Amino acid sequence: MSKLEGACIIGQSGGPTSVINSSAYGVIRTALDAPEITNVYGAAHGIKGVLNDQLLCMDEEDRAELDRLPYTPSSALGSCRYKIADPDQDDTDYRRILEIFKKYDVRYFCYNGGNDSMDTCNKISKYMKKVGYDCRVMGIPKTIDNDLFGTDHCPGYASAAKYIATSVMEVARDAQVYDTGMVTVIECMGRHAGWLTAAAALANAEEPCCDFIYLPEVDFDMDKFLADVSARYAEKKNCIVVVSEGVHYADGRFVSEAKTAATDGFGHAQLGGLAALLANIVKEKTGAKVRGIELSLLQRCAAHCASGTDIAESYLSGKTAVEQMLLGTTDKMVGFACDRTNGYRCEPKLFALTDVANYEKKFPREWINAEGNNVLAPFVDYAMPLIQGETKLEKVDGLPRFARLKKVFAK
Amino acid sequence: MSKLEGACIIGQSGGPTSVINSSAYGVIRTALDAPEITNVYGAAHGIKGVLNDQLLCMDEEDRAELDRLPYTPSSALGSCRYKIADPDQDDTDYRRILEIFKKYDVRYFCYNGGNDSMDTCNKISKYMKKVGYDCRVMGIPKTIDNDLFGTDHCPGYASAAKYIATSVMEVARDAQVYDTGMVTVIECMGRHAGWLTAAAALANAEEPCCDFIYLPEVDFDMDKFLADVSARYAEKKNCIVVVSEGVHYADGRFVSEAKTAATDGFGHAQLGGLAALLANIVKEKTGAKVRGIELSLLQRCAAHCASGTDIAESYLSGKTAVEQMLLGTTDKMVGFACDRTNGYRCEPKLFALTDVANYEKKFPREWINAEGNNVLAPFVDYAMPLIQGETKLEKVDGLPRFARLKKVFAK
Repeated sequence: MSKLEGACIIGQSGGPTSVINSSAYGVIRTALDAPEITNVYGAAHGIKGVLNDQLLCMDEEDRAELDRLPYTPSSALGSCRYKIADPDQDDTDYRRILEIFKKYDVRYFCYNGGNDSMDTCNKISKYMKKVGYDCRVMGIPKTIDNDLFGTDHCPGYASAAKYIATSVMEVARDAQVYDTGMVTVIECMGRHAGWLTAAAALANAEEPCCDFIYLPEVDFDMDKFLADVSARYAEKKNCIVVVSEGVHYADGRFVSEAKTAATDGFGHAQLGGLAALLANIVKEKTGAKVRGIELSLLQRCAAHCASGTDIAESYLSGKTAVEQMLLGTTDKMVGFACDRTNGYRCEPKLFALTDVANYEKKFPREWINAEGNNVLAPFVDYAMPLIQGETKLEKVDGLPRFARLKKVFAK
Repeated sequence: MSKLEGACIIGQSGGPTSVINSSAYGVIRTALDAPEITNVYGAAHGIKGVLNDQLLCMDEEDRAELDRLPYTPSSALGSCRYKIADPDQDDTDYRRILEIFKKYDVRYFCYNGGNDSMDTCNKISKYMKKVGYDCRVMGIPKTIDNDLFGTDHCPGYASAAKYIATSVMEVARDAQVYDTGMVTVIECMGRHAGWLTAAAALANAEEPCCDFIYLPEVDFDMDKFLADVSARYAEKKNCIVVVSEGVHYADGRFVSEAKTAATDGFGHAQLGGLAALLANIVKEKTGAKVRGIELSLLQRCAAHCASGTDIAESYLSGKTAVEQMLLGTTDKMVGFACDRTNGYRCEPKLFALTDVANYEKKFPREWINAEGNNVLAPFVDYAMPLIQGETKLEKVDGLPRFARLKKVFAK
């Protein structure tokens, strides 16, 4: 494969994670060091930055600030949720992207995101091939949801999982403090896949603390849920439930939509998050003291609790993307293949973008117990290696010192 | 002062903190090492453990587990919210406490808690004096609310403050990720005092990220709030608001009670936490994308993000309580006197229990700006030293390894 000279773009897309910038850093650092790569640009707000001709000059950034990217949460370059058209229907965006690629002589394009972003990446790659513009295109996975096809796991998942398990352990300690008993309902993200919620099971490895886990992969049954919780509460006066925001009834209705099922005791409808809703229903049924806790955005941005393994692997995926492009690879996503026999080994592995785009990997049913209210040991064996190691986040005055980019636009 | 031989009890009361066990450890460690102290007991669930004759033998615990207490959140001995009667009205509880003290030859009693607990401590101390039972009684402050009289600050506050500031910094990064703009409302604990909410201002020391802070010490004005947020959102398309759960209107009504003020767009009343309520009102007014985030219990139990200074000072307060009792001191609370000129120095200082009991220290009005929507530099100078340093929490398999006590009951 002949050497291809030109610029490189890295774009970040979709919801951020604690470690998405570690992947970006893997791309940027490797690209800055590659002689063939003339310029390294960050697309401001993902593909919108390309369409709007807003490219950030990574060459202009201070080395020390770039070095802080792996420990900085959220998309440092900005993100977007932009669904690109089918080029056969409307190729306006693609012609514009080609124009910008030509303007800056872009020959390397990395896009970091989830299912939709891999689709974007795939479409751009195919378009460039069709019009004969020589450009290598690589997808870098990123999603706390861990629902991408093929890859053993997704960068970003492990840090969220570590935060969830840590928080569940801490809340469980808090919930035991009075002898009056309590039912605590903790809500995790994951609209369609239960990977994040399942991470609560990791909390049990150190000490049993999480009683029930409900994932969207199993139809939710309110009567069964109330029976589960009531029995456990009656038995030990304490019950910790972790539930996915995406749990739904057999007919597909989200439980969180059935908000009027509970009342506040004065006959008013009790709205709010799923955790609050379920906590209130439990209170009505059992008379228990209840707490509803929504982990909210914190689970995807708590960089202070990121997984060292996740940070390193996210970096690896970005680095590998550039290395592979330099070797001539294109049209692939850099995922992972892992081996958990005799310790944990993780290697980058390439997947065809066409295979990855728009497919959601659900939590396996066989890793959920028969009753549908907990996850099984094989999941713990799968996830535990991913959350190992701590962040090297620098602290100044006791608080995180995140990267501060100058963000100089290319002209 | 002659030497007094006998047993020592440590009790934990009220809502837990990330470091309440560090104070307990200060008591336990120092008492175990004191020749005069024959036995060291932990009261199971605070004063209820004394009343119910449920004392835990600290002498029976493994040294390695006790050594983990400073890094273990929530009350390891169990807590209670038990309001003891006025002894002049009803001395039943006091006679029972005396009976238990006599049964176990208790001559040293430490009680760790907030305003109410200092009141309990004070009443017990006065009663023992009245009936001529020789027992030394010390209060150890503990409250994330930081609202105890006299002491410069309260053990437990700084760790919650550090967690809040860290989380605000992380959420602020997350909120900037799209170019579509967002208003984020973060709700902190503190029903009557704004110390916790004010901690969000520490997040601004590293980089400006928190736009407005509303404390219960200033009457809340919904129109002013909406004007503040709308103007800031119009100016920079992004606005982070941190608000105390205890904000209230001039007539005293809590804003969180006025839940029916907002609707969900379908005419249904929008209930839920204060953060969700305010976020929805902002959405109606500005059309902005909004997020409401309640930090919930996490702010008082996130031991993984505790302040090293707080851990050390909490230990110091417990240790000093025992040392002082051995010297003959009684009827006091061990607070802190601090000097912030030429660096930060913190010394234990004794306060009369009578002065401390049942008094709430509000956030000073002069540390709030004239507009009532932010806090001023003197607060940052006050609080910043308190959040310095990190926890030494041991991790096993990437997760916290908290203390596990055997909890052997005394007979």
